Amino acid sequence: MMSAQNRRAPLSGSSIKPPHRGAFPLKNYLSEKRTLIDAYLESYFSISSPPQILHEAVVYSLFAGGKRLRPILALTSHEVCGGDPRNIIPQASALELIHTYSLIHDDLPAMDNDDLRRGKPTNHKVFGEAMAILAGDALLTEAFSMIGEPANRNTGPGRKGTRQQKATLRITHSTIAKVIHDVAKAAGLLGMVAGQAQDIIAENAEPNSDVLQFIHFQKTAALIKVSVRMGAVLAGTKKDRVDALTRYGEQIGLAFQVIDDILDIEGTAEELGKSPGSDSKKKKMTYPALYGTEGARQKAKELLNGALDSLGIFSREADPLRHIARYIVGRKA
Amino acid sequence: MMSAQNRRAPLSGSSIKPPHRGAFPLKNYLSEKRTLIDAYLESYFSISSPPQILHEAVVYSLFAGGKRLRPILALTSHEVCGGDPRNIIPQASALELIHTYSLIHDDLPAMDNDDLRRGKPTNHKVFGEAMAILAGDALLTEAFSMIGEPANRNTGPGRKGTRQQKATLRITHSTIAKVIHDVAKAAGLLGMVAGQAQDIIAENAEPNSDVLQFIHFQKTAALIKVSVRMGAVLAGTKKDRVDALTRYGEQIGLAFQVIDDILDIEGTAEELGKSPGSDSKKKKMTYPALYGTEGARQKAKELLNGALDSLGIFSREADPLRHIARYIVGRKA
Repeated sequence: MMSAQNRRAPLSGSSIKPPHRGAFPLKNYLSEKRTLIDAYLESYFSISSPPQILHEAVVYSLFAGGKRLRPILALTSHEVCGGDPRNIIPQASALELIHTYSLIHDDLPAMDNDDLRRGKPTNHKVFGEAMAILAGDALLTEAFSMIGEPANRNTGPGRKGTRQQKATLRITHSTIAKVIHDVAKAAGLLGMVAGQAQDIIAENAEPNSDVLQFIHFQKTAALIKVSVRMGAVLAGTKKDRVDALTRYGEQIGLAFQVIDDILDIEGTAEELGKSPGSDSKKKKMTYPALYGTEGARQKAKELLNGALDSLGIFSREADPLRHIARYIVGRKA
Repeated sequence: MMSAQNRRAPLSGSSIKPPHRGAFPLKNYLSEKRTLIDAYLESYFSISSPPQILHEAVVYSLFAGGKRLRPILALTSHEVCGGDPRNIIPQASALELIHTYSLIHDDLPAMDNDDLRRGKPTNHKVFGEAMAILAGDALLTEAFSMIGEPANRNTGPGRKGTRQQKATLRITHSTIAKVIHDVAKAAGLLGMVAGQAQDIIAENAEPNSDVLQFIHFQKTAALIKVSVRMGAVLAGTKKDRVDALTRYGEQIGLAFQVIDDILDIEGTAEELGKSPGSDSKKKKMTYPALYGTEGARQKAKELLNGALDSLGIFSREADPLRHIARYIVGRKA
């Protein structure tokens, strides 16, 4: 049963290093994808709608230097499944709106009460609490409008070839409705919002692995997982591949949060864009708090291996996802 | 050109009273529709998901005695267009989630800072600000999940007839994607959130009819308008009828807010479920503030007539909408 799909087995096992790690131009790859997303977001929000201060509050946080990781994962997953990333830019970009809304609301005085984010004052510090709440509300709502953007508007300038058009049309309304449902489930009462609520409730509580797992999974991994999944679903990929990519997304999503927890202890203010140690000051339930920094690092490695294992049915075409997984675990900010 | 569609012209002109006003059992009509919505919402939120306090906060406000006006308008509009209201219960119910989220966030200390809503302590008074923000976020997100509910799950128990199934299947994914886009536009940066932001900015400002119109239209009318429109779109109605119902929705939406402003001055604490006079205390920009109570009442009548005129192309089948329009303008709470 050693099919062609398994010929990259050495990569997807417990060994973390790929054979040609240096050969993949990850930086360029991420930068190209990021440019696609940024161009779309800039165009989408280029015309200010009244009241101007609300528009400014939205734009302030959306263009505050985010890595666009979730949209990039959606585009990459779509490409790995044979799709053209340019066909799903609105849907992928919507994930950044949801991520940004969650950061604005998390930073509020009633929540984590943070003054700095990515080296800049948080939204409510600049625009006041009311506008920050509303900017978050607007971003969340607009995300669903963006996912529902009519498919024929996905075709940008200079994209007139019949083949491209066909690729665009392959994304059916049925798929869009499914994606909206998936994303809402990942972000809502059974997903990200539940994780954030539990994160606040668990402050000062005795660390507990079940609660910690719940927080990390819901607060961070659910949206990252659905980002990877979205790209596959929008490509019309077969179920076993969608499932494999969903598992990959879950593992890198959890790993992302474990690394975040470690960086909050080990990062410098410059790397983090805010003072380190804020989790321990707020007595947040984190992996390092429960297992120590080394235990957390070990956990991140296990999750990385799990993510790579999930890609076992894919060949070299999934290399970008393998490199992104390593980048997430190796990142310094 | 006096077609059959115009035979009810006397009803849709400037005369407000219908020939048989007393004959229509509006109370029963509203109550039946409300029961459908409540049963669905109760079932949807019957199983608590962790963390329990977030679930409780969501349920607290969602079942605090709302009239379910927006879902009822969607069901009624759908029925007027020949659809079976039972086929669009998830989509209609989602409107109540969006409405409820907007109330929870509006009541927050950073926004309108209200302690009472419908005679009960506001969400943040019971669950704290963080949970209130998150309960709102969860309701807004869940609304889009609900609109995107797979169509075949719309068929409730005892609905096995072939005719009913056909009616269910007529709602295509393409229509669902369109509705999600419409609702997100009405609720987001170009709609309800913009209206709420402008409402806060305009506090203490000199009343101005353009700003007032903007606030009323965005804050209240946009969601009511899209509720009526949704029912028609989901019925696959022809464009001229969808447009007519959209105009009707806009007028009753504006009228609803004008009456709200008047009730804040003339209503009793018991009728309002909170102390009257809160708008003038907060120096809100309202119709009575700009035109006086009598001027505002005149404006509401004009809007009612406009709404009835918009229904001119409909025959008796639109009577429920005519009665609801009169109910909105005549209501005491």
